Amino acid sequence: MKTSWLLSEITATLGGEGRGADVAVSRLSALAAAASGDISFLSNPKFKADALASPAGILIVSPKMAAEFTAARSLIVADDPYLYFARVARLLHPLQAALPGIHPTAVVDASACIAPDCEIGAHVVIGANVVIGAGCRVLAGCVIENDCVLGEACLLHPRVTLYAACRLGNRVVLHSGCVIGADGFGNAWDKQNRCWYKIVQMGAVQIGDDAEIGANTTIDRGALADTEIGHGVRIDNLVQIAHNVKIGAHTAIAACVGIAGSTEIGAYCIIGGAAMFVGHIHIADHTVIGGGTLVSHSIKEAGHYASSYPLQQHKDWVRNAVHLRHLNEWHKKIKKLARALPETPNTPDTQE
Amino acid sequence: MKTSWLLSEITATLGGEGRGADVAVSRLSALAAAASGDISFLSNPKFKADALASPAGILIVSPKMAAEFTAARSLIVADDPYLYFARVARLLHPLQAALPGIHPTAVVDASACIAPDCEIGAHVVIGANVVIGAGCRVLAGCVIENDCVLGEACLLHPRVTLYAACRLGNRVVLHSGCVIGADGFGNAWDKQNRCWYKIVQMGAVQIGDDAEIGANTTIDRGALADTEIGHGVRIDNLVQIAHNVKIGAHTAIAACVGIAGSTEIGAYCIIGGAAMFVGHIHIADHTVIGGGTLVSHSIKEAGHYASSYPLQQHKDWVRNAVHLRHLNEWHKKIKKLARALPETPNTPDTQE
Amino acid sequence: MKTSWLLSEITATLGGEGRGADVAVSRLSALAAAASGDISFLSNPKFKADALASPAGILIVSPKMAAEFTAARSLIVADDPYLYFARVARLLHPLQAALPGIHPTAVVDASACIAPDCEIGAHVVIGANVVIGAGCRVLAGCVIENDCVLGEACLLHPRVTLYAACRLGNRVVLHSGCVIGADGFGNAWDKQNRCWYKIVQMGAVQIGDDAEIGANTTIDRGALADTEIGHGVRIDNLVQIAHNVKIGAHTAIAACVGIAGSTEIGAYCIIGGAAMFVGHIHIADHTVIGGGTLVSHSIKEAGHYASSYPLQQHKDWVRNAVHLRHLNEWHKKIKKLARALPETPNTPDTQE
Repeated sequence: MKTSWLLSEITATLGGEGRGADVAVSRLSALAAAASGDISFLSNPKFKADALASPAGILIVSPKMAAEFTAARSLIVADDPYLYFARVARLLHPLQAALPGIHPTAVVDASACIAPDCEIGAHVVIGANVVIGAGCRVLAGCVIENDCVLGEACLLHPRVTLYAACRLGNRVVLHSGCVIGADGFGNAWDKQNRCWYKIVQMGAVQIGDDAEIGANTTIDRGALADTEIGHGVRIDNLVQIAHNVKIGAHTAIAACVGIAGSTEIGAYCIIGGAAMFVGHIHIADHTVIGGGTLVSHSIKEAGHYASSYPLQQHKDWVRNAVHLRHLNEWHKKIKKLARALPETPNTPDTQE
Repeated sequence: MKTSWLLSEITATLGGEGRGADVAVSRLSALAAAASGDISFLSNPKFKADALASPAGILIVSPKMAAEFTAARSLIVADDPYLYFARVARLLHPLQAALPGIHPTAVVDASACIAPDCEIGAHVVIGANVVIGAGCRVLAGCVIENDCVLGEACLLHPRVTLYAACRLGNRVVLHSGCVIGADGFGNAWDKQNRCWYKIVQMGAVQIGDDAEIGANTTIDRGALADTEIGHGVRIDNLVQIAHNVKIGAHTAIAACVGIAGSTEIGAYCIIGGAAMFVGHIHIADHTVIGGGTLVSHSIKEAGHYASSYPLQQHKDWVRNAVHLRHLNEWHKKIKKLARALPETPNTPDTQE
Repeated sequence: MKTSWLLSEITATLGGEGRGADVAVSRLSALAAAASGDISFLSNPKFKADALASPAGILIVSPKMAAEFTAARSLIVADDPYLYFARVARLLHPLQAALPGIHPTAVVDASACIAPDCEIGAHVVIGANVVIGAGCRVLAGCVIENDCVLGEACLLHPRVTLYAACRLGNRVVLHSGCVIGADGFGNAWDKQNRCWYKIVQMGAVQIGDDAEIGANTTIDRGALADTEIGHGVRIDNLVQIAHNVKIGAHTAIAACVGIAGSTEIGAYCIIGGAAMFVGHIHIADHTVIGGGTLVSHSIKEAGHYASSYPLQQHKDWVRNAVHLRHLNEWHKKIKKLARALPETPNTPDTQE
């Protein structure tokens, strides 16, 4: 494996404009930690001074910033230094290719159709009629139930479960412990017997190309139709996606989010950590939701939404939060006060 | 497997009153998606027009709605169309019976007592003195530690863990990745050594008949006594149940809920997603908790409780939420204003 | 295994002052449940009456409380009765030692270096160059990827995943289903191709001595440097620790907490359940965070912080919470009212 890269080799592969000496680097580093054999980047101008002083072998900078450095400084000039850095990271740490073969401890149903170049790890279990496309890696301890279909070049980290009949596109990445296709939470109340009657979940889960799903995240199968995750979606760890949810293409969802049944999130949304969505609502494309927000109704207009309670010292919180139980009384009192006063002209503070 | 059902066959099995032609159906569908070979239902009267126009082979409707349809229309008239539909779903998709046998890759302790008609999947591990009742299915990759007891007809989806000495009733369903009986979070602060001293968790977990537990949910073992989940309880995915919690019979808990130690939730409660309960409180039977609610004290009177912050555009939230830090000052100011004004008679708006 | 202990044997082993008859006990119990063969403790003075009436064979009490009991009562007098009880629990239920040996179904790479007294369970998978110290127990179904290092006497409960190159100190406990070292949620937006570009996560996870991590908790590997969990840290179930987070020594984190990327939590902090931390902030040592709090900025001064919305009946919440969208208008209105009134002298209620 190649462990050292010249500046000229990097730009020959990834584009961008090289400047200064054609030095070699072998490691990627954050600006503050970079040494002479490292490549780093300057994305936020507020770190300009750090970048100017950095011993990093190569710095990736924007065209605007490039002028700040001496001609001898080894630079790669790129429009988006952070994205370029991400590409260098992939160049130096290429995705591991499948080591073709089925581990002797894997249990694979005779009717499964697995491309010959796939890597099937130790103790994997693959059910009847499963189809796995070229170049997939299914690592140790995964369980893929009957009738699932995986596209090409998927990567299932250890101990992933796919319930029956789920379908993955190409290059889907599933992290360890995630559970795709468990039963949606569907129960009808049986008045006569005073108990819940389970509703069979007859749909499955579809995940689009290039989606990546985090560790221990759960995506439930649909009740009648399928739960659908769009192309290029990124979902972090410990996220719950309920039955019949649809997530639009290229939406990113941070950790600990919960999305209740049948809610549809648009494309290109960004969902902050621990946000919670009620069921049966629609969120417009390009919506941004702040961390910890409870999304209690549909959002028709893209924008940035929030709903969290501000942090305080506990003793101040005790004094202030108690009044939240009385806001409606205050509302009446303020109205009454306003009525009791003579009319007052508009004053500048109403422009605030 | 039977794939098509006549109206008369369905009513002969499940009851309800058949009307119109004795047509056959082979699939369940939502009203909007139903085709001529499908059976669907009308539960919410606001979809009456859709139902009247639907090509669905059979519709399940309430007695009140039945009068709206022509005599030729194939209907099943049932008091609770949604529940009836759930029963039809089970009829068309019967629960898979155990395929008796222990997979050759399973590792089963010689002292375990497993009913002969159980299905034990690939790579399952079963410890000493475990007892598994008739008709259970323990799917691939489950680990059942020593001294656990399973009743009859339980279904453990792939990769479930039962720590030692946990006990399941009959027909319990555990979804993939759930962990039953891990140590409760018990730590005593050791002042002298300035570190936490772990408190051995000596209890176990008991789960009642017909309970169903979601994917990647965790239920901790008790410290001294057991953690107890009642009969017929439904728990969704990614729920945390701490040590010594008790959940009453037939309570339903949506995803992402957390319940801290020793809290007791009554029977027939409905807990919305992402609700959080502090420890050592009691919640009355039949209580309903809204999604995202922090339950900070006991609830003695059944009712519907909530505590979430309303959704806003982020720019509006910034303007409004900042004042929450000053409500107590406002309180004083409003009182002072009210005192400074002459007495005002009660006005109609106080009736609001 | 020894199943019964005399009072004198306990104090000989653990210290503390024995009083009264040298009775034997075989079980630990809560005060309310204790029988004559049990040992229990009185920590909270409000249960003094229960303690005086308790049939427990031995009671552990503080020096101050000891005077309340008759001379014949079998007591152990200890400064911290709860901690002493925790030590008795460990004495009666000693940590299970490793049963040395590698289960024949485990798949262990030839290059792994495993101390001969380790216990490696059924269906465990261990990758290349893994090092496992003396006395470790790696239970059924765990997957330890290449280049991981475990110190001595670690306990991995069933079905834990360690991604490549993670390092555990000594006596680390990982509960079932936890995932250590999955990729951090790093994505750069590629404007040209309108999609996310994954940032390779090149760091790993380090966990200090005596740390314990709960069931189904996820701790992501760092982007460039490592994610670090300090010595003696206690983390409960279903917690999410993002990439490059640092948790200081002896901090305790309750269930369902989420900590976003690069945030640093100090030492000796106590974090309540379901608290959420935004990324890139610092929390001072000894900080206490209330359950359900959204920590939206750094905390430089140790103290007790909170931010949750108070619980109400849903009908009251509907009436009150709606006003939160209008607090800024109220603010202006109250200011205007105050200006419109003649100056009022400070009145006693401002001292509230």
